[in-house]
Amino acid sequence: MLKNIVLAAGAALLLMAPAAQAQRSRKASPSPKAKASPAPARPDLADSVAIRRIFDEALLRGESYENLRYLTGTIGARPSGSPQAQQAVDWGKATMEKAGFDRVYVQEVMVPHWVRGKERGEIVGNKGKEVKVAMCALGGSVGTGGKLKAGVVEVRSLDEVKNLPVEAVKGKFVFYNRPFNDALIEPGAAYGGAVDQRAFGAIEAAKRGAVGALVRSMTSAHDDFPHTGAMRYDEAVPKLPAAALSTLAADQLSQLLKANPDLQFELELECATLPEEKSYNVVGEIKGSKFPNEIITVGGHLDSWDLAQGAHDDGTGCVQSMEALRLLRAAGFKPERTIRAVLFMNEENGTRGGTEYARLAQQNKETHLAAIESDGGGFTPRGFTIEAEPGAVAALTRWAPLFRPYHAADLLPGHSGTDIEPLQAAVHPKALIGYKCDSQRYFDIHHTAADTFDKVNRRELELGGASMAALLYLLSKYGL
Amino acid sequence: MLKNIVLAAGAALLLMAPAAQAQRSRKASPSPKAKASPAPARPDLADSVAIRRIFDEALLRGESYENLRYLTGTIGARPSGSPQAQQAVDWGKATMEKAGFDRVYVQEVMVPHWVRGKERGEIVGNKGKEVKVAMCALGGSVGTGGKLKAGVVEVRSLDEVKNLPVEAVKGKFVFYNRPFNDALIEPGAAYGGAVDQRAFGAIEAAKRGAVGALVRSMTSAHDDFPHTGAMRYDEAVPKLPAAALSTLAADQLSQLLKANPDLQFELELECATLPEEKSYNVVGEIKGSKFPNEIITVGGHLDSWDLAQGAHDDGTGCVQSMEALRLLRAAGFKPERTIRAVLFMNEENGTRGGTEYARLAQQNKETHLAAIESDGGGFTPRGFTIEAEPGAVAALTRWAPLFRPYHAADLLPGHSGTDIEPLQAAVHPKALIGYKCDSQRYFDIHHTAADTFDKVNRRELELGGASMAALLYLLSKYGL
Repeated sequence: MLKNIVLAAGAALLLMAPAAQAQRSRKASPSPKAKASPAPARPDLADSVAIRRIFDEALLRGESYENLRYLTGTIGARPSGSPQAQQAVDWGKATMEKAGFDRVYVQEVMVPHWVRGKERGEIVGNKGKEVKVAMCALGGSVGTGGKLKAGVVEVRSLDEVKNLPVEAVKGKFVFYNRPFNDALIEPGAAYGGAVDQRAFGAIEAAKRGAVGALVRSMTSAHDDFPHTGAMRYDEAVPKLPAAALSTLAADQLSQLLKANPDLQFELELECATLPEEKSYNVVGEIKGSKFPNEIITVGGHLDSWDLAQGAHDDGTGCVQSMEALRLLRAAGFKPERTIRAVLFMNEENGTRGGTEYARLAQQNKETHLAAIESDGGGFTPRGFTIEAEPGAVAALTRWAPLFRPYHAADLLPGHSGTDIEPLQAAVHPKALIGYKCDSQRYFDIHHTAADTFDKVNRRELELGGASMAALLYLLSKYGL
Repeated sequence: MLKNIVLAAGAALLLMAPAAQAQRSRKASPSPKAKASPAPARPDLADSVAIRRIFDEALLRGESYENLRYLTGTIGARPSGSPQAQQAVDWGKATMEKAGFDRVYVQEVMVPHWVRGKERGEIVGNKGKEVKVAMCALGGSVGTGGKLKAGVVEVRSLDEVKNLPVEAVKGKFVFYNRPFNDALIEPGAAYGGAVDQRAFGAIEAAKRGAVGALVRSMTSAHDDFPHTGAMRYDEAVPKLPAAALSTLAADQLSQLLKANPDLQFELELECATLPEEKSYNVVGEIKGSKFPNEIITVGGHLDSWDLAQGAHDDGTGCVQSMEALRLLRAAGFKPERTIRAVLFMNEENGTRGGTEYARLAQQNKETHLAAIESDGGGFTPRGFTIEAEPGAVAALTRWAPLFRPYHAADLLPGHSGTDIEPLQAAVHPKALIGYKCDSQRYFDIHHTAADTFDKVNRRELELGGASMAALLYLLSKYGL
């Protein structure tokens, strides 16, 4: 909800009369560093031509799609701590070395290692029949240690559990079944409005004496794909096993409960958390020609959930980030500031990579101008969402006309990305920026077995990488 | 939650600088017809709330997706003149009657009836081996009357054929192999730049004494789906059989020709044109409460090519058009002008339905204010393309802020649609309007066996229908 309101407010900026915009830019106090090459009052024809060259390179000779084919098809699912995650690290490093970036290196980081094992869920007591349902353990869940059979109490929210008498919950599964609000235009906002059930459901259930948590999958789609995703525990209460049901299974369970409130659910999860593993962020760098100490980061996350290939989440962000650097080079540009592509490890269940990247930046006293993250899928570009002071937002917004020919001109305040956010407290970049693409299809496949290479359209992926490269070009030329 | 979003959308309007608002109202010159309810100087908060209500209805209680499931899944491919096309007519009529529109009727029209039959294509002479390739007859092609084996001359354009000596072409297949220009951002522009090969290739080949035409499929995708589509003949020269090769097959043939320019191609097409059949446009109408004689049309085409289900081309346009009327009703609006949903017959190979609709409008001396066509797929909305006098374009553009919360605010001059274009000469509507959606994926599936229901995302489809309904709401309230 918050997100949508922010977007609407941002839209108002685009509607402002030029006089009002000038007012804003006067208020923005340019940083001393930006003096050497001040941001242009309006887009330059040379910039327009440069950006067209970047898009030509992406669309005619792009490498991101074939890179993604390898990452998703040959390596496949790569949850943190898995051998496939290590293969992805090796591949990312080799790919950037082959691309000839100035410096390619890794940053060591310890990551959680959770494994799924076998899993099964059944509705029991439906006129004596057992109904097997499409389900999966939530990421990080404890196992059931054999079969766990219990009654089910259906709720729509965490608050509802808090307000139920203990005897209504004790010894049962709490079944969180609040769907996405489909009226929201941004599916990300619908996700944000429902995901507390997945994140905190097991904790609230445990506080009332439940034995497990069942959660409706985080999607608007009506199908039989269960959606996994991270969940949390609270050390003060027992750790309950927690599983997601497909939306069809959730609807079915809800319907059967209405007819028979005493039916039971049988859950069997073999998942477990193993000792932490050593893993890595992968970093590739092109040194700035004029301001080598000013760093601009562009990244996605290399780990994925275990159910599928991690194509849109977030193979696309990884290959786009590497491609963005390659595009600048191939289109003949020598960035004035240092640009880094970062493949972050462990976004899904710990953000250890993002945290470590920020810690090292602080430890090494680095100056970070801005960071861009692509972690919303590889769909058709819309633009970028910005977390920054009003002055930096206004500076970025002035570049919107350059992105208009590519339908990527939405430059609006909004959430940037999980992996770059730790930079804020650590090194205070002037802007954190999220790559924003059309997201209507994202939550159909997010964290499911359907997040596969064939769901990615080559041109949509390439347009996104080119948009990111164009923004890097402008940031590295003009600063903020 | 909903309330907040409405306020946010409205808030964007209220945030406009006063100077800019004044500027806008000075420029607006209301048309004489619109005097009874003049177009507002700036978008109205009530309109913003009304449009939000339309989107709520579409996203929460939409019927277009299930309608499309039936049209594509149960009826399936429905080329003009086929029994399935007749089923689609019956279904369209029944669906609109069930929706309770004021008047539902059909318009008789004679249509061509082309049938595919068996087909086969092989590259012969590749080191003694025959290579079967993915191919299909172009729509309207004559058959080969048995096996047709001949050499192949590869060209990149119609002009190249015109300039070749007759002896280089005579007795051979002309193989048109100019690919899409991938640098173009709009795939529709790339299609427009290549499709002359499919439309006129057989004619130019016949003029130089060739025996057939082979055409690279009209797509940027590299896969094994051949793309059919309409082709033309010229009565002055022989009618040559013409087939499309998949892009992979075209690449393969081109490569083998380089190694062996004397290789042959064997083509066998059983396709034929049968006598014309009687068919129908289907029309559903809601009578205007204030100006019943001013008509606004919204439509898509009911026929499809024969290879698949005609989901994005153009089942989506049909169900969105019917849904647009239903949405206005269900959201509680009584349009002031008459609104018609039209399911046009025979867009793909004749435009007989669109031509007849315009002829009847002229014959009945109807007044047409505007027409909207959806025939570019059912993907995420971007806005609308407009064919109109500058004054009408400006009037429509003033409504853009109302579409901004839905990312459908691109209101720009551009092509409208094949089925509504005959209205221009017949009854001079003030604007012809094309529904414009994201089109990066469209030509991957266009006219192929892959244009199926599963390629359509429910929310993307619904957002499009709601955008069309919102424009109908504004047109019917304010005129142009």
